[in-house]
Amino acid sequence: MSGTIKVTFEPEGKAAFVLPGSLVLEAAARAGIIVDTPCGGRGTCGKCRVIVRDGCSPVTATERRLLKPKELASGLRLACQAKLVRETAITVPDASRFFEQRILTKGVKRALKLCPAVAKRTVRVEEPTLTASRSDADRVLDALGDGALRLDLGAARQLPAALRAADHQVTAVLHGNDVLALEPGDTAGQCFGVAFDIGTTTVVGALLDLATGHEAAIAARTNPQVSFGDDVVARITYASEDSGLAELQAKIVECVNDIVAELAARAGVPRDGIYEMTTVGNTTMNHLLLGLDPRHVAQMPFPAVTRAAMEAPAADLGVAIHPRGRLYAMPNIAGFVGGDTVGVVLAADLAARRKPTLAVDIGTNGEMVLGTARRLVACSTAAGPAFEGARIRFGMRATDGAIEQVRLRDDVETSVIGDAPPRGLCGSALVDALAELLRVGILEPSGRMLGPNELPRKLPKALRRRVVPGERGNDFVLAHEAETGLDSPILLTQADVRQVQLAKGAIRAGIEVLKGELGVDDAGIDAILLAGGFGNFIRRRNALRIGLLPPVEHARIHFIGNAALVGAKMVLACTDYRAQAEALSHRVEYLELGGLPQFQAHFAEAMLFPESD
Amino acid sequence: MSGTIKVTFEPEGKAAFVLPGSLVLEAAARAGIIVDTPCGGRGTCGKCRVIVRDGCSPVTATERRLLKPKELASGLRLACQAKLVRETAITVPDASRFFEQRILTKGVKRALKLCPAVAKRTVRVEEPTLTASRSDADRVLDALGDGALRLDLGAARQLPAALRAADHQVTAVLHGNDVLALEPGDTAGQCFGVAFDIGTTTVVGALLDLATGHEAAIAARTNPQVSFGDDVVARITYASEDSGLAELQAKIVECVNDIVAELAARAGVPRDGIYEMTTVGNTTMNHLLLGLDPRHVAQMPFPAVTRAAMEAPAADLGVAIHPRGRLYAMPNIAGFVGGDTVGVVLAADLAARRKPTLAVDIGTNGEMVLGTARRLVACSTAAGPAFEGARIRFGMRATDGAIEQVRLRDDVETSVIGDAPPRGLCGSALVDALAELLRVGILEPSGRMLGPNELPRKLPKALRRRVVPGERGNDFVLAHEAETGLDSPILLTQADVRQVQLAKGAIRAGIEVLKGELGVDDAGIDAILLAGGFGNFIRRRNALRIGLLPPVEHARIHFIGNAALVGAKMVLACTDYRAQAEALSHRVEYLELGGLPQFQAHFAEAMLFPESD
Repeated sequence: MSGTIKVTFEPEGKAAFVLPGSLVLEAAARAGIIVDTPCGGRGTCGKCRVIVRDGCSPVTATERRLLKPKELASGLRLACQAKLVRETAITVPDASRFFEQRILTKGVKRALKLCPAVAKRTVRVEEPTLTASRSDADRVLDALGDGALRLDLGAARQLPAALRAADHQVTAVLHGNDVLALEPGDTAGQCFGVAFDIGTTTVVGALLDLATGHEAAIAARTNPQVSFGDDVVARITYASEDSGLAELQAKIVECVNDIVAELAARAGVPRDGIYEMTTVGNTTMNHLLLGLDPRHVAQMPFPAVTRAAMEAPAADLGVAIHPRGRLYAMPNIAGFVGGDTVGVVLAADLAARRKPTLAVDIGTNGEMVLGTARRLVACSTAAGPAFEGARIRFGMRATDGAIEQVRLRDDVETSVIGDAPPRGLCGSALVDALAELLRVGILEPSGRMLGPNELPRKLPKALRRRVVPGERGNDFVLAHEAETGLDSPILLTQADVRQVQLAKGAIRAGIEVLKGELGVDDAGIDAILLAGGFGNFIRRRNALRIGLLPPVEHARIHFIGNAALVGAKMVLACTDYRAQAEALSHRVEYLELGGLPQFQAHFAEAMLFPESD
Repeated sequence: MSGTIKVTFEPEGKAAFVLPGSLVLEAAARAGIIVDTPCGGRGTCGKCRVIVRDGCSPVTATERRLLKPKELASGLRLACQAKLVRETAITVPDASRFFEQRILTKGVKRALKLCPAVAKRTVRVEEPTLTASRSDADRVLDALGDGALRLDLGAARQLPAALRAADHQVTAVLHGNDVLALEPGDTAGQCFGVAFDIGTTTVVGALLDLATGHEAAIAARTNPQVSFGDDVVARITYASEDSGLAELQAKIVECVNDIVAELAARAGVPRDGIYEMTTVGNTTMNHLLLGLDPRHVAQMPFPAVTRAAMEAPAADLGVAIHPRGRLYAMPNIAGFVGGDTVGVVLAADLAARRKPTLAVDIGTNGEMVLGTARRLVACSTAAGPAFEGARIRFGMRATDGAIEQVRLRDDVETSVIGDAPPRGLCGSALVDALAELLRVGILEPSGRMLGPNELPRKLPKALRRRVVPGERGNDFVLAHEAETGLDSPILLTQADVRQVQLAKGAIRAGIEVLKGELGVDDAGIDAILLAGGFGNFIRRRNALRIGLLPPVEHARIHFIGNAALVGAKMVLACTDYRAQAEALSHRVEYLELGGLPQFQAHFAEAMLFPESD
């Protein structure tokens, strides 16, 4: 440890040893404390506040810009700016922590076909005799009675002991035509697999009993890679440096293993009873899990390393299921439309729809697919982060203390997640607030917030008082300082409105491009399916009001939950779905919006809010 | 190192640290010095002599039996008996060392078909565009133009860098339908493989240029497992203990890697330019290399773990060729007839012969195959070790100082390997000596050596003087003490003759059983093919004279060299041969001699020598 500095993080007292000059952010990550950095540590959001008594580098110009003199005087610093100089203790307030948010673990219910890649067969094997002293392998394969089965080296190594431990009764774990493992006696009743949805922000795993199709347990974690930036581009940038890829891969594998351990413990299943893992994720998450260099995904024209489904021994990645267990990673469609979208298309059975159906998955990215059995077209926008709190002054993820619903009556009515005073607002509240401000006339369709003197006359007094002049235009006070868990009011600023306009404009413009590509108008859209974390908590009417979605009847909008995870469960439950997924990854056409002039045109228009209800 | 004892081995001064109570034999192996133990360390041959000043356990009863009092007094001990008590230095005389023997690296010449499992294809890959931003993998597979090709995770990891390092020109290393690796630019000219014959005693490797079929280099080593016993049963016994299997596997892999390094250096080929290794060996050597538990091969009814060919990543075994290189291990036939015999059958093209042909491969074991295109039958005997020096008083392997040829004229005429006084006799000299003693009438067909008073009257005086009374019957002095490199004469004892009778009797009885099984008489044998180290140095007439082989015309006996290695080269050069080998491993019938009454009958008769020339 010579040359390193000890840093203790309070209040838990966790310590890390780091080199002088390390960022507080990095040191915290080493101590296992994830500081929330919605801007990816770029020094633009000012959210990664920590309390430093001493031992750090001088305050930077960025900090002077983002923190008030009073805050600086009280020891507040930004974890992405302050560097460690000597041994010290640093306090990380709750508000700066990346808490587990409301995570969507359930998805559209589908009756899954059951024909898993992994199956078990118990047989009694003939004993060798002097006149028929055939090899152990030959006798086992004979007993299994399938000429196509192969026994590889790993299985052969287990064979003699497994065969003789239970009197020549043995259970073969089969994966396709491969004998994956041999277990003494009859273990056919225990055959599990795990399906994972690896999101940019959230990782969800489900344990399936492959003998019955029953879901035995489900668990989720925040993707620990968030400490390296909250969007895919930040991750790719980090992965492109030195050992960045290996580091990010190690992080996600650790997270997967934590979830597997939790699933196994909760279901009372040994990890060795889990033989396969399937995974969906966007192309970047897929590449980071598999250790594929994603740098070209971030560079024009954004090619992925591979589109195809990948199969590999789970142990090759360090995934701690059965030592000879397998991994199946859902195929991708393009650099910015990944296996999660294939999962959504599979779960929603889009490829079987006779009438045009639109699936929208808004997570950290927004992916859209529109089409019918005849043709499916997909596109992607990086618009998600605003709805997850990034670049929104008081934005935060949907965790304790987040305002998650907003209504304007005589005054503001809000509901807050958890038993806590509000600290900010999450995506669904953002959509609510904008829709309500539009309705009551505080917000113009152009996105301009009216000033105190321009407000509609009939506006209730309490609401009227909430409109205050801000740095850039006017702001709206969602919660007065006295109501909050902060030492300031919670504002929705003019700049915040512009951020939402950019985000929803990009998603809507993407949808419009898809419609144009397929020659479908709004009336022609049979159904809009909302998938993913954000999509499933927003209020449909408000999403329509702000123009995030095309104007279709309210009843045609459906929530389909974590459909990507359902897709991962489908390919785990039945190999027929793998063939479908593989076909979809070829069939779904990808439109790169950046290259299309019509996208720019739609975008300019979609940034505006609709004129009226 | 606390609790361990330092032992220095002289004259090289190599040290090892061992626990008190360790055998000198084990300590020497740790220091990298292989003491010759023809009996496998069982304390029966008395050959593992070392000079110990002090620091060892007291002399054992075994040592008193096998060493003369004068020898004991001079500090001679047996390395398999003496245990280390405290720090000491031990001298290992040359005569006790396992030197590299004459190793047969050449085999029957065959024009090999060239259709290797590993092939290279250089392509120029289309660059991605915004409108066709397909994945790197899709574009490479398109350029390769073969829809069946698969790109696995390991290859995908190399892909983005390989593609961009040489301006989108890339060389794919193909193994069947798998893309094994991707190399920047055009590397098609460099594509090598190694073929190994892993014998109980000797390991030979050949480097093949897979683009031309040319043999680029050949190298051999003693199998370092010999320090754990010189026959397969001793190895199996060791492998059945604690970490024995892992230890033996590590030894052979180390040896293979040494040979690969030598081959690569001599041919000027980087190890990363070697993509596949094929290997033949008896079933036990095959199992030890692959890490398969061989214990049941040594127990009735002797089942192997697997008969099938095994393919695996070379890296799984620690074999240091290309990191993604492959291993192909020849299929076996039965527990005691392995891939080396399949190699012999393949190289000699036995399965295509219209007339009955007998192949005999005498190494440490003796394997025999007889038959035609219609039917092939094989058997095995553990008779080899006598011909390699084990259980023969002055027996030694065919290395420097070994008498390798004996003729009786007016006196004994010998030739000795290397520029050294004789220290013993190897297998070919043993056969010569017996044939000559039979011819001149010193040895009776029963195997009894006549006494000085019973000798034929016309026997030259010098020969007559060489017959001396021994411990058990009479002995024959092959070299007088003054001529030798020892402090004793080199004798052929009555007991030695009995050992050869057992060995050659077993081989001959095996041949007779095969003849009986196929209904072939001596006249019906079209050809006898002698393969393997011993077989290729014996004199055909003498082998016939002692009755090792059935009485066929001298001209019908052919030497086919290291045919097992040729088989390994064939399956490396062309996958068609793999299909043939797989078919042979099923087709060649195995006769377990131990279970056959007719073997006992033939054996009793075959122990005797033929009555006359």
